[in-house]
Amino acid sequence: MPNDLVAALDIGGTKIAGALVDSGGGLLARVQRPTPAQESAERLRATVDEVVGELAATAHWHRVGAVGIGSAGPVDAKAGTVSPVNIPAWRDHPLIADVRARAGGLPVSLIGDGPAIAAAEHWQGAAKGRTDALCMVVSTGVGGGLILGGALHSGPTGNAGHIGHISVDMDGDPCPCGSRGCVETIASGTNIARRALESGWRPGPDQDATAAGVAASARAGDPVARAAFGRAARALAAAIAATAALVELDIAVIGGGVARAGEVLFAPLRAELERYATLPYIRHLELTPAATGTDAGLIGAAAAGWRLLGERVA
Amino acid sequence: MPNDLVAALDIGGTKIAGALVDSGGGLLARVQRPTPAQESAERLRATVDEVVGELAATAHWHRVGAVGIGSAGPVDAKAGTVSPVNIPAWRDHPLIADVRARAGGLPVSLIGDGPAIAAAEHWQGAAKGRTDALCMVVSTGVGGGLILGGALHSGPTGNAGHIGHISVDMDGDPCPCGSRGCVETIASGTNIARRALESGWRPGPDQDATAAGVAASARAGDPVARAAFGRAARALAAAIAATAALVELDIAVIGGGVARAGEVLFAPLRAELERYATLPYIRHLELTPAATGTDAGLIGAAAAGWRLLGERVA
Repeated sequence: MPNDLVAALDIGGTKIAGALVDSGGGLLARVQRPTPAQESAERLRATVDEVVGELAATAHWHRVGAVGIGSAGPVDAKAGTVSPVNIPAWRDHPLIADVRARAGGLPVSLIGDGPAIAAAEHWQGAAKGRTDALCMVVSTGVGGGLILGGALHSGPTGNAGHIGHISVDMDGDPCPCGSRGCVETIASGTNIARRALESGWRPGPDQDATAAGVAASARAGDPVARAAFGRAARALAAAIAATAALVELDIAVIGGGVARAGEVLFAPLRAELERYATLPYIRHLELTPAATGTDAGLIGAAAAGWRLLGERVA
Repeated sequence: MPNDLVAALDIGGTKIAGALVDSGGGLLARVQRPTPAQESAERLRATVDEVVGELAATAHWHRVGAVGIGSAGPVDAKAGTVSPVNIPAWRDHPLIADVRARAGGLPVSLIGDGPAIAAAEHWQGAAKGRTDALCMVVSTGVGGGLILGGALHSGPTGNAGHIGHISVDMDGDPCPCGSRGCVETIASGTNIARRALESGWRPGPDQDATAAGVAASARAGDPVARAAFGRAARALAAAIAATAALVELDIAVIGGGVARAGEVLFAPLRAELERYATLPYIRHLELTPAATGTDAGLIGAAAAGWRLLGERVA
């Protein structure tokens, strides 16, 4: 077995994807199924089995030395289990054991989807060559992962970097997680749209009542839409500055649907970051859009798989 | 040169201390001078020279293999300089070069006083044997340091873990650092006393208008005093939970003058932590008082010195 490939799995609320990935980050095979997110644990397990089985049926499988999994969180890398918020039938589901059995006993690593994105951005994206980076996804939720000292810091349970659930407004709105004033309660796409609607914004005839619609209005100069993005930018800036103060960062990378609003988000975010990132050692912090595409989850999972083989690709 | 000792320097706003420390954490010599904090850079340099000179005059000096410095921050370990907020004459002062010259060219490491306390608690205190710890000082200011993956994470510039200047109230009071709603604006001893006074608390005949006085009133049941500690506890809890969400922690250690209030602080802090530390992977987080004493700064600086010699003591 030459061990010159890893198998990567990206487990999300809408799709379960798999790929065989070489040490240069090239994908040799790619498989995908819709996630039966509302179905039984058995049906979910069968879907993972299909994806792994399809990879195992390729001519390259004998070259695979390890499996890396990136999964919607929370995950528990110590216990080998996942309990994704948006996949209700899986609570403490033994995903590592399942996959190891299906993959003929290969070593299997597990990290959350936030750390996976960070690994992908560090390997092939906007954080390439950087020593200390925060990589965020701002979408229907807010997640993230950390690169510290040149390597992925996923933490003992694989969830580190979860910036969406730090409180930047300790007396603020309750969050479904149980805490208050979490970044996600202010800066997620869902909450940007909610806040704009509550403040009187209405989508135009060709717009949806979503963050993308709010972004279009903001681009056209609508002050309520701009204020909704401004408040999201402030929450993100406070959280990014907090992270930089705590671990030291040289770059923050932001991807996800809300980040695709471009300058509507990034212009106020840069301005707010100057207000919150005031300590001398964090003032130089760079801010940049993410560079990896739809396969980022797979790429990051593969990076973690390579780590199991002693190869630090990201 | 047997290299079985390091020299440690603890540079603070009130004292400059030095010691020779063995790999078991024992102090063989200890020197101390008041910090001429409001005097010239030259006068300050002369004081550091005296402390190092006194250590160099001991019979043990030939055994010293490295020097570790912990200094009031911000520091810049990359540039080898310090700019302590409370020592105005030193801005980008080349402390490493000064000390190296005075110490006969020995290798010199530099970290902030927060990371130094964390190293001390990890080596000899309440974080001993722990893999992932936050160690805080809650006093006239609020500082901290991080142990990640079993080792001190001081960051590239030596300032990581600076939890006093993360914003937990993004629309809150301005902080002297330039940001808003920093933990220190709510939870420092100075601000606990200020808030209590603003809310109508008055010290008793034997009390000072300080956090210690507020703590005494709180212990006696005064609701305004209790509320001031309650709000500080909430800010600390939100910040500790944020740190745990970002890097994963198994313990938070709290020392400093305000922590000496004991249950007046720790009881509301534990209750608030349950409200903010809700993610599954941070719910088990332990909270404990610091265990190292007045020499913690020296012990932590020594730990960093030992790291230069390839010895990971903390």
